[in-house]
Amino acid sequence: MVKQRLMTPGPTEVPEPSLQALSRQVAHHRTPEFRRLMAEVLEGLKCVFQTANDILVLTSSGTGAMEAAVVNLVPRGGKAIVLESGKFAERWREIAERFGIQVVRHQVPWGQPFQADEVARLLEDHPDAVAVFATLQETSTGVGHDIQAIGRAVAGKALLVVDGISGVGVMECRTDAWGIDVLVVGAQKALMTPPGLAFLAVSPAAWKQIESISRPAFYFDLLAYRKALSVPETPYTPSIPLVKALAESLRLIRAEGIEAVWARARMLASATRVGVEAMGLRLVAQRPAEGMTAVYFPEGIDGKAFLDRLHQRFGVKLAGGQGPLKGRIFRIAHMGLLDELDIISTLAGIELVLAEFGQPITLGAGVAAASRVIAETGKA
Amino acid sequence: MVKQRLMTPGPTEVPEPSLQALSRQVAHHRTPEFRRLMAEVLEGLKCVFQTANDILVLTSSGTGAMEAAVVNLVPRGGKAIVLESGKFAERWREIAERFGIQVVRHQVPWGQPFQADEVARLLEDHPDAVAVFATLQETSTGVGHDIQAIGRAVAGKALLVVDGISGVGVMECRTDAWGIDVLVVGAQKALMTPPGLAFLAVSPAAWKQIESISRPAFYFDLLAYRKALSVPETPYTPSIPLVKALAESLRLIRAEGIEAVWARARMLASATRVGVEAMGLRLVAQRPAEGMTAVYFPEGIDGKAFLDRLHQRFGVKLAGGQGPLKGRIFRIAHMGLLDELDIISTLAGIELVLAEFGQPITLGAGVAAASRVIAETGKA
Repeated sequence: MVKQRLMTPGPTEVPEPSLQALSRQVAHHRTPEFRRLMAEVLEGLKCVFQTANDILVLTSSGTGAMEAAVVNLVPRGGKAIVLESGKFAERWREIAERFGIQVVRHQVPWGQPFQADEVARLLEDHPDAVAVFATLQETSTGVGHDIQAIGRAVAGKALLVVDGISGVGVMECRTDAWGIDVLVVGAQKALMTPPGLAFLAVSPAAWKQIESISRPAFYFDLLAYRKALSVPETPYTPSIPLVKALAESLRLIRAEGIEAVWARARMLASATRVGVEAMGLRLVAQRPAEGMTAVYFPEGIDGKAFLDRLHQRFGVKLAGGQGPLKGRIFRIAHMGLLDELDIISTLAGIELVLAEFGQPITLGAGVAAASRVIAETGKA
Repeated sequence: MVKQRLMTPGPTEVPEPSLQALSRQVAHHRTPEFRRLMAEVLEGLKCVFQTANDILVLTSSGTGAMEAAVVNLVPRGGKAIVLESGKFAERWREIAERFGIQVVRHQVPWGQPFQADEVARLLEDHPDAVAVFATLQETSTGVGHDIQAIGRAVAGKALLVVDGISGVGVMECRTDAWGIDVLVVGAQKALMTPPGLAFLAVSPAAWKQIESISRPAFYFDLLAYRKALSVPETPYTPSIPLVKALAESLRLIRAEGIEAVWARARMLASATRVGVEAMGLRLVAQRPAEGMTAVYFPEGIDGKAFLDRLHQRFGVKLAGGQGPLKGRIFRIAHMGLLDELDIISTLAGIELVLAEFGQPITLGAGVAAASRVIAETGKA
């Protein structure tokens, strides 16, 4: 019997009340009861996203909501700037290209963040760009982007679309104050709900653009979702149990307070970084995000074998690398239900398996360093 | 306290083991355990769909899978025949038009079925049509179509695409034997799983067409789903708990046997029809389906008030009408977990509320007639 510890940056552990909500018998969704639940969920999401904009609930993975953002904002032949430095930013480009959009591709090496002044320059060079597609927390590298600064650079020049799928609900994100026109969020990350729902927050400026173009979309036609908001409901049958579970998870987040959730993640991220660096390991991200940490394996370690052993020995499930980082890095989440002792035990598991793999490691060094960060934050 | 009785043609009641599966803690999906579950689910769906074709699992409502079928098969400017006689058949046309497909619209009045010889004539007039879009059980009218005969008319001339969202798993449907090239199915109907998953069964001929065109799709690009089948997994994060629940529901269906499930539905449908006709009510469908029955309200009844009262008094949730039938009909499901006594109690509830609404009704007449059908079938 191995105790399971899900430490991946999505899916994340689902809290007990949300699991219980999932197992309630399905009731019909075209009812006053379900409409009340939808209204509560929309209110909760507005609080977490820090927005007064319309929120649309899609039954799909996060990728479906990314596609919805692309095809509803930029017509075939239209121009879009994609800030690309990781697997999920690449997805923005792949979707846009699939729909015949002219992509201005701004690449920086994986692990590096974008600079707002570069974005400003791109917009000067491409004043006809409809939108800038960015990423809050790039899950493939653990980079956290300065969306606030990028928002200032984009304001008044184009629409700002942000993939907040894994970042929102764990990293500070102020949709309205930072000028995010379309925010895309997934249920199965910091919102502690099983996968199957995705959300878009759409600004009035984005709606104006959406109304002005025709789109190759039916299931992802956002105008149908806006129309259904007046009830509130969804145009097509939503995943009823997932909406119920989300309502419970949002209650937990609001009870803690979104600012407190962000602060907790900041502390866990800091403890994790200090801990892995004390083990002599190197971070992937030059500007680390707060919902997860990506770390290079020491030279000579077989990444897949390491992660398999960690999972088999201690039930600790971490994510490996993707694309060019496959086999070279591991990724630890600190979003959702996780607390200080989850981070400590994960670090301890990593130390023990590194030792097993013959690495010259001082057992306890990473754990001790992380504990000191936790103690310091407790004092503040 | 009112006992809830969900008698709508989707969502349907979810069996206890499936509800319990939903509430198990979420585990990661890129694991051998989840792949084994996916393999089991694909095997179960093949049995229910009666096919050896590839089966693709989408995290979306059934409408998403309909869109996937349209955009992957018919290019912009290509021609498709849509057999249209209800709200869901209309959706085929709406999706096709949205994507710039030339639609040959074959309409018959709502409540009437299509004739295979008409389909054959349409194909003679339009030999360049890529596909014929049909519906197994038209949920808005309760018509069941003769897909076997239509399949013979279409064979070798075009691809046959069938919306089996609400019909498959309750009405006889032999995908391979009847020549269905793309079958679309939803989780939340006869498959007794909460909404949020949809399925496509794709024939080799359909794959050939899919490979030959480019498509305005990313999330719904079926080639990505086919590629992931080799693992088996899905290209984007699937709704993990829904897959677990589906596995349980499929186990129940396979334990009963798909032929036995069809026979049970045939009997429940027959008892329902005889029961409502014994109350003096009139059926909507000229060729009734076996997963549901649509019935006209008597003249002078306020449909919404009637359904609200039935739900409030006895917890019996029926569906009302859609489009031109709104307020004029009610719809009873007999798919999924429902048995003889569920049908009897629903008919009794309808009788009692009709009497309350001042209708000249002989209490027990409908129930007695339905009971006789049940007793007869038991003898056979």
